[in-house]
Amino acid sequence: MTSPQERAARIAWARLSEPTEAVMFRWVQEHGHVEALRRVREGLLGVGRAVAERSRSFDVLAEEAAAARLGARIVVPGDDEWPPGVDDLAMPPHALWVGGHGRLAEVCERSVSIVGARAATTYGMDVARGIAHGMASRDFTVVSGAAYGIDAAAHEGSLAVGGCTVAVLACGIDRPYPQAHRGLLNRILEAGCVVTELPPGSAPLAKRFLARNRLIAAMTAGTAVVEAGLRSGSLNTAAAAQQLDRHVAAVPGPVTSMLSAGCHELVRNRGATLVTDAAELADLVGALGRDTAPERREVSLDSSWSPADKVVHGWVPVRAPATVDSLVKACDLPVTAVLASLTRLELCGAVRRTDAGWLKVPEATGRTSRRPTVH
Amino acid sequence: MTSPQERAARIAWARLSEPTEAVMFRWVQEHGHVEALRRVREGLLGVGRAVAERSRSFDVLAEEAAAARLGARIVVPGDDEWPPGVDDLAMPPHALWVGGHGRLAEVCERSVSIVGARAATTYGMDVARGIAHGMASRDFTVVSGAAYGIDAAAHEGSLAVGGCTVAVLACGIDRPYPQAHRGLLNRILEAGCVVTELPPGSAPLAKRFLARNRLIAAMTAGTAVVEAGLRSGSLNTAAAAQQLDRHVAAVPGPVTSMLSAGCHELVRNRGATLVTDAAELADLVGALGRDTAPERREVSLDSSWSPADKVVHGWVPVRAPATVDSLVKACDLPVTAVLASLTRLELCGAVRRTDAGWLKVPEATGRTSRRPTVH
Repeated sequence: MTSPQERAARIAWARLSEPTEAVMFRWVQEHGHVEALRRVREGLLGVGRAVAERSRSFDVLAEEAAAARLGARIVVPGDDEWPPGVDDLAMPPHALWVGGHGRLAEVCERSVSIVGARAATTYGMDVARGIAHGMASRDFTVVSGAAYGIDAAAHEGSLAVGGCTVAVLACGIDRPYPQAHRGLLNRILEAGCVVTELPPGSAPLAKRFLARNRLIAAMTAGTAVVEAGLRSGSLNTAAAAQQLDRHVAAVPGPVTSMLSAGCHELVRNRGATLVTDAAELADLVGALGRDTAPERREVSLDSSWSPADKVVHGWVPVRAPATVDSLVKACDLPVTAVLASLTRLELCGAVRRTDAGWLKVPEATGRTSRRPTVH
Repeated sequence: MTSPQERAARIAWARLSEPTEAVMFRWVQEHGHVEALRRVREGLLGVGRAVAERSRSFDVLAEEAAAARLGARIVVPGDDEWPPGVDDLAMPPHALWVGGHGRLAEVCERSVSIVGARAATTYGMDVARGIAHGMASRDFTVVSGAAYGIDAAAHEGSLAVGGCTVAVLACGIDRPYPQAHRGLLNRILEAGCVVTELPPGSAPLAKRFLARNRLIAAMTAGTAVVEAGLRSGSLNTAAAAQQLDRHVAAVPGPVTSMLSAGCHELVRNRGATLVTDAAELADLVGALGRDTAPERREVSLDSSWSPADKVVHGWVPVRAPATVDSLVKACDLPVTAVLASLTRLELCGAVRRTDAGWLKVPEATGRTSRRPTVH
C-alpha cells in the first residue's frame, strides 16, 4: 500500500507537471514524490512562481472529491488497479484517473493495442473492427485512444461482441475527446475502462497525445497499427511499444493507399510483424500454444464467399449467439441478404444455428478454448 | 565453345526428356550428354522402347532448321547468349530456344522477375504495371511468364516505357500461350526475348509450368510476387528463387483480398521482403548504392493527388519524353483530365515539360543516373 502522503504527492505532481516533463521527473526520481513536492513548495527547486504557488495551494481532498464526482477513481502504484506495464516506462505516470466497470490491471493482463489513422479509409475501419472483434472473441482487451477512425473502429469491434475495451485519453477524464465520441466513451465505461494520467480539466493538447501514446503501448503486450500515414501518431505508439520491448504488428493494405504506407514502412524498416487478421495478431501477442494461429488455408477464407458473406461472417460472434436482428443492425445489410449469407455460411460450416441465435464456428480447434474471463 | 556433338546431344535430351525429369537428368550428370545419349540409343539405360527409338531417329539438323524457321536460335552452355543464372539450378535446362531481338545473357544481367496471379485484380494489374514500368525506367529487364493477369501486366509495364522484357514459356516457342497473348508475345520479341527449354511443338502441360517457374527464378537477381492466392504458382517461383539464394519480394494488398494472401504469407513466414514500389524493389535486387531506395517521404507521394494524377504520373516516362496523345492512350483517360493532371504534377515538380513531350522528374537524385543500356 502506498502511504497517503505518497498518494497525495503523486496526485499533486500530476497536477503540477506535464507527463514526460523531463526536469520535474528527474526531481521526483531523485527525491521521491513527497520530498520533491516539499522542495517545490519551499522554493528549493527551480520552478516558476506560478508552479510553486500552485504546489502550495494544492488540495488533495478537493482532487479526490472531483474524481469521485466524475465517477472516477485515482489510481497510484501499489493500488490493485495499477497496471504493472506502465512501470516499464522511462517516465511512468504519477497517477492515473480511471473510470469504468473494468478493473484496470486485470483487464490489461491479456490485452492488445489497436491504433491507427484518424482519417482512415473504409477498408481500414473494417479491418480494425474485424481484428478487434476477433481479439475480443479471444478474450483480449482492446486498448486504443478513442480517436476518430481506426481507434473508434477498434473499440467498436470489441464492444460489438461484448468484449472489454480500454480508452486512454490525452486529456482529463471529464473532457470526452473527441466530443462526438461521448456516446462511444460511455459505452467503453460500461464495458471496460477510460484512463488518463491527466487530472480533470486538462485539455487535449498536441504534446499530450505523444505522452498518451506511450501509455497505450506500455499497458499492453503489443501494438497493432491498422492504417497509418508516414507521419501518423500511431507510428509513435509503435515506436514506444518497440522501445518497451512489446510486440509491434502492422496490417498491410493497398500500396496505392498513403494510409497504408506507414504500416508498410513498419514492416520494411522497423521490424514490425505483418498481420492480416486476429488469429495472426493473437499468435503474436498471446500466450504460446493457446493463441497459436492456424496455418492459413484457402478453405477457411473461401474465395467463393460474396462480400456480404464476409461481412456477415465477420459479425457472427464466437461466444454469445447473435440474433438475426442484431446481425442485420451490425452488418447494415437488408435482412434478406443477411439470411442468405447465414445459410451459405452454415452450409460451409463457418457458422452454426443455436436456439439463442447464430454462432461462429472457430477456424481451428484449440484457439478458442474457454478459460475464466478476466472481466 | 561447346562441341557440335555436345550441342546435338543437349538438343536431343531436350527433345527426349521432360525438364526436371530426375532419373534421366542423373544419367546426364553421370555420363555427360553425349555418352548418356549413346547409351540410351544402344539400350544400355533403362528407358522405354519409344524413347530409345526416338533417340535413334533424332535429327539435330531438322531441329536446327525448325528453330530457324521459327526465327529462334537454340542456345546451349558455352554460347554467348546462355544466361549464367540458370547454371545455379539443380537441374539446369539442356538447351534453350530463344527468340527476339534481345541477347538473352546480356538482358538478364540486370533483371528482375515480376510474377503473380492469373486471375489478378485491377489493383494487382495496376501495381504490377507500375512496378514493371519503374524497373524498366531503371534499366532492369522484366522477366515473367506471359500468362494472364500479373505476368501480362508486368510485360506491358516494361514495354510501355520501351524497356526490355523477357517471357519464359512452358511450351514450345511455336505455341504462343495463352493464344490471346500472341500480340503481346510479338511485342516482347521486338523488345526483348521469348525463351523456353521445351522444343517446338511442346504443349503447355501443368508440370511444365512448375519447371518453367524455376527458370524465371534462376534467370534473375530476384523475384517479386505482386498478387498470389495461397496456392498460386507464383509462390512456387518465389520458393525456387529462395532456394537459389535470389531475392524474394512481395507486394502487399488489402488483407480482405485472397489474392494478396499469398504475398502476405511470403512476408510473414517465408522471409520475403515487403516492397511497395519500383524504388524499393530496385533497392532490393539492384546494385548497392546505385539502386538504393530513397527514404519514403510524404511529399513525393502527395496525398492531395487525385487518382487521375497518380495514374498519369505512373505513365510519364523517365527516359524518353511522352506526348500528351500517348499518355491519353496509356492512361485511358480523357485528354482534358490528362492535361489537368499534368499541370498539377508540373506545379509540384513531379513532371516536367520538354520540347518532345513530358518527362517524370526522378524522386531522388542518383537513382536514375544513366549508364550505357544493355539492350
